[in-house]
Amino acid sequence: MALIVHKYGGTSMGSTERIKNVARRVAKWHDAGHQIVVVPSAMSGETNRLLGLAKEITTQPEPRELDMLASTGEQVSVALLALALQSIGKQAVSYAGWQVAIKTDSAHTKARIESIDEAKVKQDLNAGRIVIITGFQGVDSKGNITTLGRGGSDTSAVAVAAALKAQECLIYTDVDGVYTTDPRVVSEARRLNTVTFEEMLEMASLGSKVLQIRSVEFAGNYRMPTRVLSSLTDPLIPLEEEANSGTLISFEEDTNMEQATITGIAFNRDEAKITVRAVPDRPGIAYQILGQIADANIEVDMIIQNQSSEGKTDFTFTVPRGDYDKAMKVMDEKVKALIGTADVVGDTKVSKVSVVGVGMRSHVGIASQMFRTLAEENINIQMISTSEIKISVLIDEKYMELAVRALHKAFGLEKA
Amino acid sequence: MALIVHKYGGTSMGSTERIKNVARRVAKWHDAGHQIVVVPSAMSGETNRLLGLAKEITTQPEPRELDMLASTGEQVSVALLALALQSIGKQAVSYAGWQVAIKTDSAHTKARIESIDEAKVKQDLNAGRIVIITGFQGVDSKGNITTLGRGGSDTSAVAVAAALKAQECLIYTDVDGVYTTDPRVVSEARRLNTVTFEEMLEMASLGSKVLQIRSVEFAGNYRMPTRVLSSLTDPLIPLEEEANSGTLISFEEDTNMEQATITGIAFNRDEAKITVRAVPDRPGIAYQILGQIADANIEVDMIIQNQSSEGKTDFTFTVPRGDYDKAMKVMDEKVKALIGTADVVGDTKVSKVSVVGVGMRSHVGIASQMFRTLAEENINIQMISTSEIKISVLIDEKYMELAVRALHKAFGLEKA
Repeated sequence: MALIVHKYGGTSMGSTERIKNVARRVAKWHDAGHQIVVVPSAMSGETNRLLGLAKEITTQPEPRELDMLASTGEQVSVALLALALQSIGKQAVSYAGWQVAIKTDSAHTKARIESIDEAKVKQDLNAGRIVIITGFQGVDSKGNITTLGRGGSDTSAVAVAAALKAQECLIYTDVDGVYTTDPRVVSEARRLNTVTFEEMLEMASLGSKVLQIRSVEFAGNYRMPTRVLSSLTDPLIPLEEEANSGTLISFEEDTNMEQATITGIAFNRDEAKITVRAVPDRPGIAYQILGQIADANIEVDMIIQNQSSEGKTDFTFTVPRGDYDKAMKVMDEKVKALIGTADVVGDTKVSKVSVVGVGMRSHVGIASQMFRTLAEENINIQMISTSEIKISVLIDEKYMELAVRALHKAFGLEKA
Repeated sequence: MALIVHKYGGTSMGSTERIKNVARRVAKWHDAGHQIVVVPSAMSGETNRLLGLAKEITTQPEPRELDMLASTGEQVSVALLALALQSIGKQAVSYAGWQVAIKTDSAHTKARIESIDEAKVKQDLNAGRIVIITGFQGVDSKGNITTLGRGGSDTSAVAVAAALKAQECLIYTDVDGVYTTDPRVVSEARRLNTVTFEEMLEMASLGSKVLQIRSVEFAGNYRMPTRVLSSLTDPLIPLEEEANSGTLISFEEDTNMEQATITGIAFNRDEAKITVRAVPDRPGIAYQILGQIADANIEVDMIIQNQSSEGKTDFTFTVPRGDYDKAMKVMDEKVKALIGTADVVGDTKVSKVSVVGVGMRSHVGIASQMFRTLAEENINIQMISTSEIKISVLIDEKYMELAVRALHKAFGLEKA
C-alpha cells in the first residue's frame, strides 16, 4: 500500500465519457490498496473558452480577475471526477486549491506554490476516500485565487505529491513517455524507461515538451519520483503493467550509471541569434547589452562570448524568434549608443540541437563525436555552448532534422 | 451618496455584450457617487450546462459535488463583470462567496445563509472600488462550497444588502416590476409602484414568480427595501428615472394606507386537491394525515378542515400537481389504515386564485365582493382559505383565467 498522486491532462478529462475512464483507472489503483490523490486539469478547450470570454470584454485584463475566471475550469473537472468515482461505488471528495490551502505568492497568472497543508488530505485518505484537488491554482495570503500559468497542473500534482510524501507522482498524458528524440523527426526514437531529473530538465527546456519545466524543477527540489505515462491505454489493463510503463524521472544516481552515455537529442526551432561585433572588451559590457534586453521582457537562451583579440570581442545571444524584431529595436535604439558600436547583425533562420545525458559527465569524447557527426553531414556549427550534461549547437535551420537524425544514429539511441 | 446593492439575473449576464451593458449601468450609479455592490447570476444556460454534465456521469450525484460544480457559473460571471468594469476605467474586484465569508449551513444545494463578514467589502467600497460578489453560494463551517438552490442569487443579494446595511437592494430582471396580476392573462394588469413585504410574500408564493420567495423573507426579516426593476432598459437612461422605476417592496406602513384596498390577483395553476371524507373528529387526525405526506417530502399548500357534524368531518389539502400520484399512493398505503377510513378522493384539474392586499385588514366586504364576482360568472368555489392579507379560492382550472380577469376588473386594479 502506497500513497500515489495521479495527474490527468485536459485531453484525458475532455468529455464525460473520458472522465468515466479516468475514474475507472483511479478506482483500479484504489482497489489495489493504494491511497490515491488525483489532480486533474480543466476539460480540454475550457480554459481557452474562458479566456476567450475575457478577451471579448477587454484586451487588457487584470490578472487577478483572469485567475478568478480561469480557475473555474479545474473546479468543474474535480467535481465531475468525484461524481464519476462515486457513481462506481468509490468514496471521493473534491477540493479547490484554497480548500486544502495550496498557498502561493500573489503573482497572478504565474504564481508559485509556497506551501500545502496536508492534514486535511491525509484525514480523507485515512478514511478511505479518494481525494481530488484542482490543478493549476492556489490561494495567496490575502485569500485571492491565483493560478500557476498554463500547464501548471503538472506542478500542482508534483507539489501535492511532495507535501504528502507520496511514493510516486504519475503524470498521465497523451504521450506514453519521454523519447530519445521527437519520433516525428526520427522514427527510430526510443522511449526511455528512466531519465534523471537533470536530463529531464535539459530535455524539457530544450524543446521536448512533455512536462512543464517548473514541475520538473519541483520534482527535483523535493526528489519526488515522477512518471510520465499514457492515459490512452485501456483503463483496466493490469496495474503492474501500468505501474511500470512510461518514463520514470528518477533521483537515484545508481540507475544512471547503467544507462547509455547519451540519453537523448533535444532541439528547438524557435531561435533567433543576434551578434554584436567588435565589442570593447571591458567590464560591464555583457550587462549593458543584456540588461536592456531583459528590461524589454525578452527571454535570452544561449549566450556566448569568446576570447577577445586586440581588445575587441564578439558577443552573441539567442532569443525566441517572435521576440527578434523587438530585440533588434532595443539594440538599435538603446544598446548601440550605450556600448559605442553600430555593428549588430542577426539571423532568424537558426535552430538549436542538443545532445543530453548525465553519462557525459564521466565520458570524454562526446563533444568530438558530436562535431564529427555534424561535419560528416557538412553541417556548419554557428555557436556552441555546453553544460555538465549537455552540448548545444546552433545551426542553419534547414539542417536541423538531418542533424537530429544523424546524431540519434551516431550515439546508437535506437538501441535500448 | 448611498450604499446600493445591484443584482443581475442570468439573462442580463447572458453574453459578453450584455455584461458590458451591466458594467455601463453599474458605472453610472458609481459615477453618481454611490457605493455599489453587485451580485450577478451565472450566464444564462451555464448552470444547466454544468448540471447536464453531472447528469451525463450519474443519475444520483452527491449534493456536495453538485455545489462544487454549479458554483463555478457565478464565479465566471463575477470575474467577467469585474473585467468589464475595469475596461471602462472603474476599479472593481470580484469575490466568490467564501472569500467574503458568506457562511451558510451545510444543506448542500439548498443551504441557508447564516452570516456575512462585511468588513472586507466595506474596506473595498471605502477605497472607491465596486465590489462584485457571486450570488447563489456560500461556504459552510467546514470550508465546503454550498449553494442556495435555484434562484438563490436574489437571496444572496438581499442578504449582502442587509449585512452591509445598504440603502436599497435593486433586483434587475427581465420583467419591469410586480403587476396587479399576470399581464398575459389580463392585458389591463398594472405595474405597482410599491407593494408591502407581506403582499409580496403572498404574491410570490401564490405564483407571481418575480422574486425567489426566500429573498422576500430575507428582505422582510431585515426590513431591507428591495426594488424589482428592468435590466432591459438602455443602461444610460438618467439615474433618477431608473431609481424610481420598477416596484419597491416597502416596509413603511404609511405608504400602504394610501394604496387601494386590493393590491393584486395571484393565481396558481399547479394545484391538485385531495379530500379525506368522513374523518373521525378526534385529536391527532390532521397530524396522522399530513405527517405521512411530509415524510414523503411532498409540499402541502392549502389545508382546510371544516366544523364537524356528527363526529365526522372532511379534511382537504392541496399538493403540487406533479406530486399528486405520489401523495395518493401515500394515502392508499399508509393513511387509510392509520385513520380508519377508505373514502379518499382527489382532483388534479383545479387552480387557486387569490386576492391579495394589506388594505383588506381594515376593510370589510372584500370577501363578499370576491364571492359575488365569481358567482356572477357562474364559477363554483370548491375551497376557501384566508389570511390577514389574502383570500384564496380553489376553482375548476378551466375557469381560472376568467376568474382572474373578472376579479381584476371588479376591484378596479387597472386604475392607478
